[in-house]
Amino acid sequence: MDPYAKLIDHCREIAALEGALSLMQWDQQVLMPAGGTEARSGQTTRLASMIHRKLVSDETRALMVEARNSSAGDPERMAMLVALQRDLKTRESFPLELIERKARVTSNAYQAWRKAREENDFTSYEPHLAEVVEIVKESAALLGAGDHPYDSLIDLYEEGSSFAEAKSVFEQLKPFTLNLLAEIRDGGSPIDDSILVADWDQQRLRQFMEHILREVGFDFSRGRLDIAKNAFCTTFATSDVRMTTRASEHIKGVVSSSIHEMGHALYEQNSNPGWDGTPLQGGASLAIHESQSRTWENVVGRSLPFWTHFLPDLHRFFPNLNGVSAGDMFKMMNCVEPSMIRVGADELTYNLHILIRFELEVELLTGALAVSDLPSAWNEKYCEYLGITPLNDGEGCLQDVHWSRGSFGYFPTYTFGNLIGVQVWDSLNRDVPNTGALIERGEFQPILSWLVQNLYGLSRSLKPKDLVRQLTGADMTPDNWMRYADRKYRALYNLG
Amino acid sequence: MDPYAKLIDHCREIAALEGALSLMQWDQQVLMPAGGTEARSGQTTRLASMIHRKLVSDETRALMVEARNSSAGDPERMAMLVALQRDLKTRESFPLELIERKARVTSNAYQAWRKAREENDFTSYEPHLAEVVEIVKESAALLGAGDHPYDSLIDLYEEGSSFAEAKSVFEQLKPFTLNLLAEIRDGGSPIDDSILVADWDQQRLRQFMEHILREVGFDFSRGRLDIAKNAFCTTFATSDVRMTTRASEHIKGVVSSSIHEMGHALYEQNSNPGWDGTPLQGGASLAIHESQSRTWENVVGRSLPFWTHFLPDLHRFFPNLNGVSAGDMFKMMNCVEPSMIRVGADELTYNLHILIRFELEVELLTGALAVSDLPSAWNEKYCEYLGITPLNDGEGCLQDVHWSRGSFGYFPTYTFGNLIGVQVWDSLNRDVPNTGALIERGEFQPILSWLVQNLYGLSRSLKPKDLVRQLTGADMTPDNWMRYADRKYRALYNLG
Repeated sequence: MDPYAKLIDHCREIAALEGALSLMQWDQQVLMPAGGTEARSGQTTRLASMIHRKLVSDETRALMVEARNSSAGDPERMAMLVALQRDLKTRESFPLELIERKARVTSNAYQAWRKAREENDFTSYEPHLAEVVEIVKESAALLGAGDHPYDSLIDLYEEGSSFAEAKSVFEQLKPFTLNLLAEIRDGGSPIDDSILVADWDQQRLRQFMEHILREVGFDFSRGRLDIAKNAFCTTFATSDVRMTTRASEHIKGVVSSSIHEMGHALYEQNSNPGWDGTPLQGGASLAIHESQSRTWENVVGRSLPFWTHFLPDLHRFFPNLNGVSAGDMFKMMNCVEPSMIRVGADELTYNLHILIRFELEVELLTGALAVSDLPSAWNEKYCEYLGITPLNDGEGCLQDVHWSRGSFGYFPTYTFGNLIGVQVWDSLNRDVPNTGALIERGEFQPILSWLVQNLYGLSRSLKPKDLVRQLTGADMTPDNWMRYADRKYRALYNLG
Repeated sequence: MDPYAKLIDHCREIAALEGALSLMQWDQQVLMPAGGTEARSGQTTRLASMIHRKLVSDETRALMVEARNSSAGDPERMAMLVALQRDLKTRESFPLELIERKARVTSNAYQAWRKAREENDFTSYEPHLAEVVEIVKESAALLGAGDHPYDSLIDLYEEGSSFAEAKSVFEQLKPFTLNLLAEIRDGGSPIDDSILVADWDQQRLRQFMEHILREVGFDFSRGRLDIAKNAFCTTFATSDVRMTTRASEHIKGVVSSSIHEMGHALYEQNSNPGWDGTPLQGGASLAIHESQSRTWENVVGRSLPFWTHFLPDLHRFFPNLNGVSAGDMFKMMNCVEPSMIRVGADELTYNLHILIRFELEVELLTGALAVSDLPSAWNEKYCEYLGITPLNDGEGCLQDVHWSRGSFGYFPTYTFGNLIGVQVWDSLNRDVPNTGALIERGEFQPILSWLVQNLYGLSRSLKPKDLVRQLTGADMTPDNWMRYADRKYRALYNLG
């Protein structure tokens, strides 16, 4: 066997284990009986450790050396090696002892977080979070490099990004958002979306969403949509991509989270199937992935043409919404309302939720903020930026899972996704004329095709910053998003 | 670490992979989108191969030697080593190449079988089955030993069994069954069960079954019941045991298959949890396992006391059956009617379905029957033994999954299970007085407790033949079952 083929085979062996692990985790969130938790957790720990040992091994290194020697000048092979090198380097930065300790600490922290959120009891969670923060600091120190301790952490989630980049993005977004928000509050015509809140039949809602997703282009013969506690998307192969959506009494909650996950899923279903099970499988980065979920959710799924097209279906599935027009849906899907919960936030205030988390996690890592002071710091920032104060920590600093899992440096990728999404959309609109008219007629194929050809089909073959430049002719910038938001909300709220 | 503990840890590592593989297979049958087949099959092949390599390894052998030296005189440890030794020996008989080939061939054959069954198209499946038969022959040759080529195959599924044993069992069952069947046909008062066939709401049926299973003793916090194309039971741990049931327009189909799988599931949920992930996990053998599914399905689930107890629930869930009495249900659940489909067969004719498969698979393996002639041979035997002829291969030789999976020698364990089930039930009735009255009052606990103490809790610590002797004071025999069936059907059909 050719050395390169040998390496790929080795990667596919690791990928089979990763696929098994993903399925175990998916199952745990969607179906598993509660009693199975301990046994499952024992098995996933073993699998995770096997994966680590198999990847960080002399075998991998030897295979890479041989494969590199036989791959010079072949761009696909070089991209493969670069991607694998990055995965390996990240893993190698940590001693096995730390990895196992982190797995244990975050597993306990996750359980404690779930309980604490349910019972609005930050105190019981505090010592766990403190342990997690210590491990994350330790990890950052081991990763080293960068001007700021946050640099190496954010780079784990978004290659090439930095504290400075995130800071600069938010320095531009913050005043823009706060100003527009004030204008809407002071001079906008209020929008009432209460008709969308009811005791909806969740199965019917799911069927409605299946109809929409199918028409947009999600292939149900290669994927599923299930109801779970959290909305997420998991890929077992380009031919098996599964989304979940939350049950919610707010139609908007189900619609947005389903279309959001569909954005991730379209990216995954249309990645290069030849790279399944290799280091090039899947998307270029978290932010690039998020750019697509946010584009489909917001730019497409909250647009007037979209609801013009799907209005007859909305009426058919929910006859008591017969009085609602496409214009009404457009308004209700976009009404701006500062709220406590990030995942339910409107498109405008969403980045403020991220900004708060970014500022707080930086302070936690630099020691400027003690873990015990997190709830009050959280509440103060919500009051300052959004003008509202959480009633309890469940809808406050306990709402997100990320920190319990040890994911510090992850949150900014959500906002990066918003920005990149609109930049890519602007590029798409230069090549594909009249996207509004296409969407209104339900002709999603030309849009999807452009994205497949220029983005989804490239999988992970380009580094995220190179990909953004190739796609948009520029680096990531808040400009496009701010232009888009300014136009959208001024029209929607009849502002000057 | 103590050498024995090291070995157990090694086994648990293998068990984690086996758990992952089982979950992948369960998922494939219950949920997976059709498009995922190829990728999933690639991953399961890799996992199966990893499991094989990890089990059949110098490491395992070395650990076993050390563990054996430190375990002399400890019966639990010795049982563990005996069980592991058997698994290892079976595996070692096959070269890795054959195992991988078998995984690939049977995965394709399974898909082809599903399609062929749906389309009643044996021709498209024939080449796949031919490949499977060749691999099974090859396996039998490698296993060697025994007087008959079938010996080594049946021993794979039922340790210590043989062609001669199966032959002898059927030689006694066949005339008994055919005679009783003729008596019923000629002189029995006919039973009409058509009221149980309707366009039932399958979700409601499932809820009805969940109610029954819960009351009998299945723990839903440690298991699930799903609807799938085939009824089966899978164990991920004693704390996560999952059953499926078929959708069916015949209430009997859903009821029997659910209670059948519950029998397997009760065995698994009540196995020794300390042995999870070790060679002693689960049941003693396929036949012993089947003895329990058949006992709960037939001896308990088709009894008059059972339907006396659950009659109010039947009426509550299905008000249009309000006119049905417990006696009616008892009769309808037991009416004898030669039919095409094994899994829907009544208790009396069931063993004839198995006999037909036993005879045919022996002929396929010895070359007495060509794969291409299977459909006609099948139909002839159904005509001869049951007096009916399948209208097509879908309800004929394509109805069972087993052969597509390469499981030859498996079928007789179903009949063995029928026999052992009644033998064990007879023993139980000597210790637990008035089981009929207990069942009528819905007091299943004393029955379940006896089974847990004497059988389920022993997991795989005894060889099946030793276990049958310990439980019943005798070897497996058709006598108890024939006595039971004779009494039951003579009463039911008012025969002399």
